[in-house]
Amino acid sequence: MGELSDLFSPDRVAVVGATERPGAVGAAVMRNLLDSFEREVVPVNPNAESVFGIEAHDRISDVTGVDLAIVTVPPDVVGDVIEECGTGGIDNVVVITAGFSEAGREGAERERRLVELATEYDLNLVGPNSLGVMSTPLGLNATFGPDDALPGGLSFMSQSGAFITAVIDWANDQRIGFKDVVSLGNEAVLDETDFLREWGDDPETDVIIGYLEGITSGQAFIETARAVVRETPIVLVKSGRTEAGAQAASSHTGTLAGSDRAYEAGFEQAGVIRAESVEGLFDSAQILSGQPLPETENVAVVTNAGGPGVMTTDSVGDSSLSMASFGDDTENRLREAMPDGANVNNPVDILGDGDDERFEEALQIVMDDDDVGAVIVLTAPTAVLEYDRLAEVIIAEQRRHELPVATCLMGGTRVRAPRERLNEEGIPCYFDPDRAVDSLDSLAEYARIRETQWDDPTTFDVDTTRAAEILSQVERREHNRLGLEAMELLDAYGIPRPESEIVTSADAARRVAERIDGPVAVKIVSPDIVHKTDVGGVRVGLDPEEVHDAYEEIVTRARNYQDDVTVLGVQVQAMVDVEEGVETIVGVNRDPQFGPVVVFGLGGIFVELLADTAVRVAPVSEREARTMTQELRAAPMFSGARGREAVDVDRIVTTIQRISQLVTDFPAIVELDINPLVALPDGVQAVDIRLTVDPDEL
Amino acid sequence: MGELSDLFSPDRVAVVGATERPGAVGAAVMRNLLDSFEREVVPVNPNAESVFGIEAHDRISDVTGVDLAIVTVPPDVVGDVIEECGTGGIDNVVVITAGFSEAGREGAERERRLVELATEYDLNLVGPNSLGVMSTPLGLNATFGPDDALPGGLSFMSQSGAFITAVIDWANDQRIGFKDVVSLGNEAVLDETDFLREWGDDPETDVIIGYLEGITSGQAFIETARAVVRETPIVLVKSGRTEAGAQAASSHTGTLAGSDRAYEAGFEQAGVIRAESVEGLFDSAQILSGQPLPETENVAVVTNAGGPGVMTTDSVGDSSLSMASFGDDTENRLREAMPDGANVNNPVDILGDGDDERFEEALQIVMDDDDVGAVIVLTAPTAVLEYDRLAEVIIAEQRRHELPVATCLMGGTRVRAPRERLNEEGIPCYFDPDRAVDSLDSLAEYARIRETQWDDPTTFDVDTTRAAEILSQVERREHNRLGLEAMELLDAYGIPRPESEIVTSADAARRVAERIDGPVAVKIVSPDIVHKTDVGGVRVGLDPEEVHDAYEEIVTRARNYQDDVTVLGVQVQAMVDVEEGVETIVGVNRDPQFGPVVVFGLGGIFVELLADTAVRVAPVSEREARTMTQELRAAPMFSGARGREAVDVDRIVTTIQRISQLVTDFPAIVELDINPLVALPDGVQAVDIRLTVDPDEL
Repeated sequence: MGELSDLFSPDRVAVVGATERPGAVGAAVMRNLLDSFEREVVPVNPNAESVFGIEAHDRISDVTGVDLAIVTVPPDVVGDVIEECGTGGIDNVVVITAGFSEAGREGAERERRLVELATEYDLNLVGPNSLGVMSTPLGLNATFGPDDALPGGLSFMSQSGAFITAVIDWANDQRIGFKDVVSLGNEAVLDETDFLREWGDDPETDVIIGYLEGITSGQAFIETARAVVRETPIVLVKSGRTEAGAQAASSHTGTLAGSDRAYEAGFEQAGVIRAESVEGLFDSAQILSGQPLPETENVAVVTNAGGPGVMTTDSVGDSSLSMASFGDDTENRLREAMPDGANVNNPVDILGDGDDERFEEALQIVMDDDDVGAVIVLTAPTAVLEYDRLAEVIIAEQRRHELPVATCLMGGTRVRAPRERLNEEGIPCYFDPDRAVDSLDSLAEYARIRETQWDDPTTFDVDTTRAAEILSQVERREHNRLGLEAMELLDAYGIPRPESEIVTSADAARRVAERIDGPVAVKIVSPDIVHKTDVGGVRVGLDPEEVHDAYEEIVTRARNYQDDVTVLGVQVQAMVDVEEGVETIVGVNRDPQFGPVVVFGLGGIFVELLADTAVRVAPVSEREARTMTQELRAAPMFSGARGREAVDVDRIVTTIQRISQLVTDFPAIVELDINPLVALPDGVQAVDIRLTVDPDEL
Repeated sequence: MGELSDLFSPDRVAVVGATERPGAVGAAVMRNLLDSFEREVVPVNPNAESVFGIEAHDRISDVTGVDLAIVTVPPDVVGDVIEECGTGGIDNVVVITAGFSEAGREGAERERRLVELATEYDLNLVGPNSLGVMSTPLGLNATFGPDDALPGGLSFMSQSGAFITAVIDWANDQRIGFKDVVSLGNEAVLDETDFLREWGDDPETDVIIGYLEGITSGQAFIETARAVVRETPIVLVKSGRTEAGAQAASSHTGTLAGSDRAYEAGFEQAGVIRAESVEGLFDSAQILSGQPLPETENVAVVTNAGGPGVMTTDSVGDSSLSMASFGDDTENRLREAMPDGANVNNPVDILGDGDDERFEEALQIVMDDDDVGAVIVLTAPTAVLEYDRLAEVIIAEQRRHELPVATCLMGGTRVRAPRERLNEEGIPCYFDPDRAVDSLDSLAEYARIRETQWDDPTTFDVDTTRAAEILSQVERREHNRLGLEAMELLDAYGIPRPESEIVTSADAARRVAERIDGPVAVKIVSPDIVHKTDVGGVRVGLDPEEVHDAYEEIVTRARNYQDDVTVLGVQVQAMVDVEEGVETIVGVNRDPQFGPVVVFGLGGIFVELLADTAVRVAPVSEREARTMTQELRAAPMFSGARGREAVDVDRIVTTIQRISQLVTDFPAIVELDINPLVALPDGVQAVDIRLTVDPDEL
């Protein structure tokens, strides 16, 4: 059990601000505690002799042996109470009182003090602005919510207190039970990651579920979750997707890696199962806590109803699962056991006159097939089918074969009892085939997660000193942007680029062009010009003799574009034959929660119109980088679609990793685009670079 | 009421094969009828004096005044019974008996006879292999299913009988009612389109819902549905998507227009709302029958729970709806009415201590805002909120403002009563915000459908005689394929193509090349060679002097590829500057249900890797053709993305229409590809064509 164990299983709980006043939070908390808590509750209230018949103390410091304090006093005195807790050696505090960082400057000030005190006295502090905490083994309900939770194996955290009251009321109705429940409140001290860690170590927690609107530290979250999901599945609803989307970073790839893409990537890299709805959250949680993991991703469907069987096949097709294909032996056995006209292929249709015994036979045969990883039992009501007996058959076969099973007993009143019976045994039962398939799908997803290898990122030998010098150029800039003048950053991090030089005279330009073999491109180098082509700041495919005039021309164009323009020079660059390869883009933008997020996509029109990109939170391992190159819809282009030569994917992969290392080494890099990174049959060439640097971070 | 009215409201129903034998279908049907049918039931059974106390007749022909016969006798005698019905002047027959086309050759033979008889006597025949029909106004349950349906406004058709029994049992539990229910069975005579037509004319049917695995005639279905949805919404679950997908046509664009794309297009062109799940089917149906249509697509959310409010905003973001933006007046009024800390923007948070009166105030203010088209009321349980009173508030405000409302009363037992109350009033109530949003979304979708203009396709002046000649070439072929030799088909249908000629000698080739201005392409013309480039059968960008050798070269290559290759000649074609424009593809393949399906997409790699295509069932109107060009993810390319010149979209639009006309005029065209159709700033050029023709259809 983790270090927060006393928070959830205290021997003695003090309620600071306990009262009998109707409607008061302090009264609701007391009542909830007195209702069901198996251990001692001590009210603290200087103005009361006793609360609900229990002697009240004036101050929390008067009470000894308290290992959990629930604070419901007004915001302006909370600080002092916390200090008393600290000096009194109380380790666990839940601040229910609102009026902190969610309520303006003054509140934020108060919250800062809470944090200081918590650090000083090393307190486990939940809240402020929390509904409270619950833990069913001891009947602990230290919330002001209307209901107790039923005991069970789900531990549940929420950044919304209202969401907890709603879910508990609903879950009680559905007979879904919880181990611990925590309303995270403002997360001044303890945040979602602390509870992941705690519940990861808790043998009584089968599944961790949560409702989150944000994450305090994406990196810590990912690290912790990866460790936890080895043993305990995590299913989360992430809310605020659309707002998050609106806050998407401004730069080009930024938009593509909008904050929700970061969460999507972050959650996936953390091994977290993401639910889109409350229903989905609990469907996943329930099957994860009730059923074994599948050994194959192939599903067998056994039904007495053809039509719904087809619907189920569709849902399987829409999921990450496949329909199992039976061995001959299975088909022969089914053919013998089933009547004529029955379908012995998957989905198995035992026909409308099939009773529980025929279901039993079919299930036994199908579950013996090694290709079958999971089973869906699907029924429509008929005159001959006895649901209660069918439920027992399903439970028995599930146990005997230890295969995950989900059921759709389609119907209403007549399936209610068997449905509850199946649920008791941890076998989900729905009306809609989709939900059965989706729940099995999340079982399979967790099975994959358990087997995922999280490699450490490769560390390449790079020249950080040189990189630091180049980045520091921004300190002499109004805008924090760097462009072509930062190409050497690529050298420092071992990313190939075409031969080039930045010159400040037309003659120098020509000399460079003569040295470079083949035609060249000349590009304006100016911090004031972000989109060089739009202002005619680029000329390509020039022979040396054309370069002199081209130089003059683009410099003039730059001046026409903006008379006080700063021109750092003109880059003369060897041409890269784009036709030979594939234009890609590697970009980075910094997500408020997850830090640097790496984006890889096809360049040119693809990135602009089709947003065909792959996203990962840095640092990116080799395995992850390679997957990014495989995720694109247009990935076949790399292996040489349309009779073209395949490009050097290994080099793309290293480039992604090296960029990941660069932005991890330098938090100062806010945004970075290599566009295009041309992938060629024999390596890659970074043709252009653009980045935004925060000088304060240097 | 339509022509099938007697089928659903008969005065006298005969059950042929009526019996008391337990487990017999004839007994179940009799019992269901006797339970609740308000009019007369007559059993027919030569071996019984009476059935359930009613005098039985030997033959159906002995009974007079029957306007509906339910047939449950063994398959081999069904035909004779039907004939008796016909001669006896009975118009409506439901054949429940199975063992017809679903059961091998013999069965198919029997079914053919049914069809002949139905045609001869002009019978409305349901089935065979049907569960039967129901109609609640008269308490008619002429099925052998276990339950009666509750009365209501949904008329329900299903190609799966099991699906009906499952849904009715569930719907009774949910208190969802039906007007008519029909189990379509094998659809030997009456099919889904007949019932669309019938229920479209039925004032008692609010919404038509159905479960379909296939459609008999897509064209008739589209035509009928378009008329029906003006007054009556249609919501369908289309099952068998994945199988359909597997049956996708083989040709290139064929795969892209796989049968499910055809259904997707067909349903959309029919104005049908497609549901993915049973839950979705009934959520849509219920709100469509219970709530008015929104006048704007902007939703206001009023809640006492911040977190769930964010979730709801997400769902709105994922839907076709938007969050309403309130006028200043609304915000001011809310600011006055609501306590400090309340959120007066959308989603409106009236805070956790908000009671029904505060909800009432907020709702009144929000519903007065003209920008608000629909409202979601969202609650988490609190100590102060009285759900029963809240329900009345919601019902009253919904009525007063006549705005569509959906509710999420999040919770379990405590919300059950108010939920039922709201449902009684036609206001949906869910736990999950998604479902509330999705149901409003289908209201909005139906509002759009009602306003959709279905234009007639433009008829262009074309040369069908010439086209027929060209197509008839296949009659002299082993494979039914035509290639470059059919380019003149484009001339016949007014589709521009680059100047070209097919020649059979190197000298002729050179002469043509000299006549054409600019470089040329030479391409092998052979029915045996489908992919010309792969066998080196194409040379491009040639000057006239190069053409002679090129001719010899590609002809030799063709012979090396296959020694008995048929070479019809070599095409010498003016080059089209692809760089100047955008490569697109226009294709057609024939769907078993919907007939010719037109596909438009970007050409080259896009079509191959990204499947960025738009699909419509032909004939395609100008409006539809234009929408196709706008649907592509890459559509901005046409208006000149990345500083390129915009292309001639009008010409693309006419080309799509002309191709649509071509394949409608000639059912013999099984598949057709124009690839590429190069869209240029000043028109389009069809560079290559490939088609498959069915000679028997010529």
